Amino acid sequence: MTATYQRIVLASRPQGWVTPENFRLERVPVPAPGPGQVLVRNHYLSLDPYMRGRMEESKSYAESQKLGETMIGGTVGVVEASNNPGFAAGDTVLGMFGWQEYGLSDGTGLMKVDTRAVPMSAYLGAVGMPGVTAWYGLNRICRPKAGETVLVSAASGAVGSVVGQLAKHAGCRAIGIAGGQEKCDYVVSELGFDACIDHRRHGDVKSMARALREAAPNGIDGLFENVGGVCLDGALACMNPFGRIALCGLIAGYNGQDIAIHHVRALLVMRLELRGFIVSDHMADWPQALTELGRGVATGKIRYRETIADGLAAAPEAFIGLLQGRNFGKQLVKLA
Amino acid sequence: MTATYQRIVLASRPQGWVTPENFRLERVPVPAPGPGQVLVRNHYLSLDPYMRGRMEESKSYAESQKLGETMIGGTVGVVEASNNPGFAAGDTVLGMFGWQEYGLSDGTGLMKVDTRAVPMSAYLGAVGMPGVTAWYGLNRICRPKAGETVLVSAASGAVGSVVGQLAKHAGCRAIGIAGGQEKCDYVVSELGFDACIDHRRHGDVKSMARALREAAPNGIDGLFENVGGVCLDGALACMNPFGRIALCGLIAGYNGQDIAIHHVRALLVMRLELRGFIVSDHMADWPQALTELGRGVATGKIRYRETIADGLAAAPEAFIGLLQGRNFGKQLVKLA
Repeated sequence: MTATYQRIVLASRPQGWVTPENFRLERVPVPAPGPGQVLVRNHYLSLDPYMRGRMEESKSYAESQKLGETMIGGTVGVVEASNNPGFAAGDTVLGMFGWQEYGLSDGTGLMKVDTRAVPMSAYLGAVGMPGVTAWYGLNRICRPKAGETVLVSAASGAVGSVVGQLAKHAGCRAIGIAGGQEKCDYVVSELGFDACIDHRRHGDVKSMARALREAAPNGIDGLFENVGGVCLDGALACMNPFGRIALCGLIAGYNGQDIAIHHVRALLVMRLELRGFIVSDHMADWPQALTELGRGVATGKIRYRETIADGLAAAPEAFIGLLQGRNFGKQLVKLA
Repeated sequence: MTATYQRIVLASRPQGWVTPENFRLERVPVPAPGPGQVLVRNHYLSLDPYMRGRMEESKSYAESQKLGETMIGGTVGVVEASNNPGFAAGDTVLGMFGWQEYGLSDGTGLMKVDTRAVPMSAYLGAVGMPGVTAWYGLNRICRPKAGETVLVSAASGAVGSVVGQLAKHAGCRAIGIAGGQEKCDYVVSELGFDACIDHRRHGDVKSMARALREAAPNGIDGLFENVGGVCLDGALACMNPFGRIALCGLIAGYNGQDIAIHHVRALLVMRLELRGFIVSDHMADWPQALTELGRGVATGKIRYRETIADGLAAAPEAFIGLLQGRNFGKQLVKLA
């Protein structure tokens, strides 16, 4: 009897909100690694907002995900069998195997990670792509100086939580925006932000701007934007001259629609700099970022929270929850 | 009998469009220069969109213009009497004397200019603040490489005309947007742009984007934005990855309203960089810019056009015309 494993493929493209019907669970045989190949048993799958873009036909950061193909995604797992001299059975490896329990690779794009001081799953979060995203946007675009104020939306999430903690380490006032009192409390009391605004209590730009002005009495110098919409427009009303905006995500519009920026004049009048970025364009910065983030997690200076769905079959619902902000911290799927 | 001269003060703040009633013409005595002072007879007054912002109470680039004070503005004129060793009667000087026929200064902010190869009025246009604005936004923000495509809105204007010509000198494809066939023809046949789109024939974003795609088949790498609204949204739909946007003006909204950016996702997906700027923040670049622009005008490599209103009393109507795009090229008022 051949051993089998599960994978999830893109069944159809979403019309507006993503639904469970956009995915299909399949069962396929576990392959045997060929010459030079490595077989990995994936332990955790990372769910990230960028996947929403790949499900669209429209041009996004990168190629669309093809129908019938395994959903893209970052994974961390353990080598089960290897014909590649660079990897041995038992090695913990980070890869992009997608939404599936096993992965086969010639070693390209596979990275061994050290799980002695940093838990395996952190390599998908604070010491992985989300952490580097936070590091890059903050250090390379927001470029905060000690004493300045940094605002980040989706502050309890995998990226936002790191942004705020790094901003604090840099001597800044860190303000967050998150959905719900529980997340806001966590952001302030556990992550050490100076303040956090519940966007559910400030559904319009005026109200959001008022809350931001209170939380950031000296104005905002660096904005790390994950959300867009009311968060972004509210923040634009509070930016200081020569402020920097790292545009990392527009999750407010992840069900497909475009959400306008209304407070455009602030970009001109305050001479703001706004830059959209994708962390994979900046591979040269990854080693430094990962070193700093790994040290931060190992020493407890960077804290994070995970929401872990159990088993691959739970991935679609967990992903939909992520797009709707139901997760709390980094959203993972436990595969083994 | 004391000699008198005319000046125009801000009588009231505009509600929406600027009207003639927002201004008041006054007649005041010509002052005698005190110790260290210079008396200048202004020959030309520059009218510029930024003045609209100063008429507002709201925070803009700089302080609001106070009610009852002489309207701000750049001027070029000739020294009539001087008690300052730095200036002699007959010197041609650039200053910020505002909407008035005479100006008195202790020499601060006054700059002698050479009118042998460059006409006096050009120091208010291509070899003045508008020219440096074009130079800075293009070279420091758009940073075009040879072979790339640069788009500029308000292309026949004082700033836009210089942007496109400098882009051509840099080996780029230069595309303009202007209002009306006459301006578009001028931009292409006299200024040497590769194409110019009449925004009056493309009033919605879809139509504008289609026209831009035709004019810029390889996409847009650098956008110099003077207008906002449909121009900006149409251009966003055509930007190449890592494109740069110099946000210089939002004249589409100069009657006070904010005009939204709808195509926000392009900023993220195309990893665009957008920077609002005011040229007076960047004085360190002025000497190099003015040297290059002066050489360009003197050698005929930079061409420009002027619309000259006759006499100070004509300034309000000329300014309103500028905000509505009725001028053709640099808008000046001849004062002497």
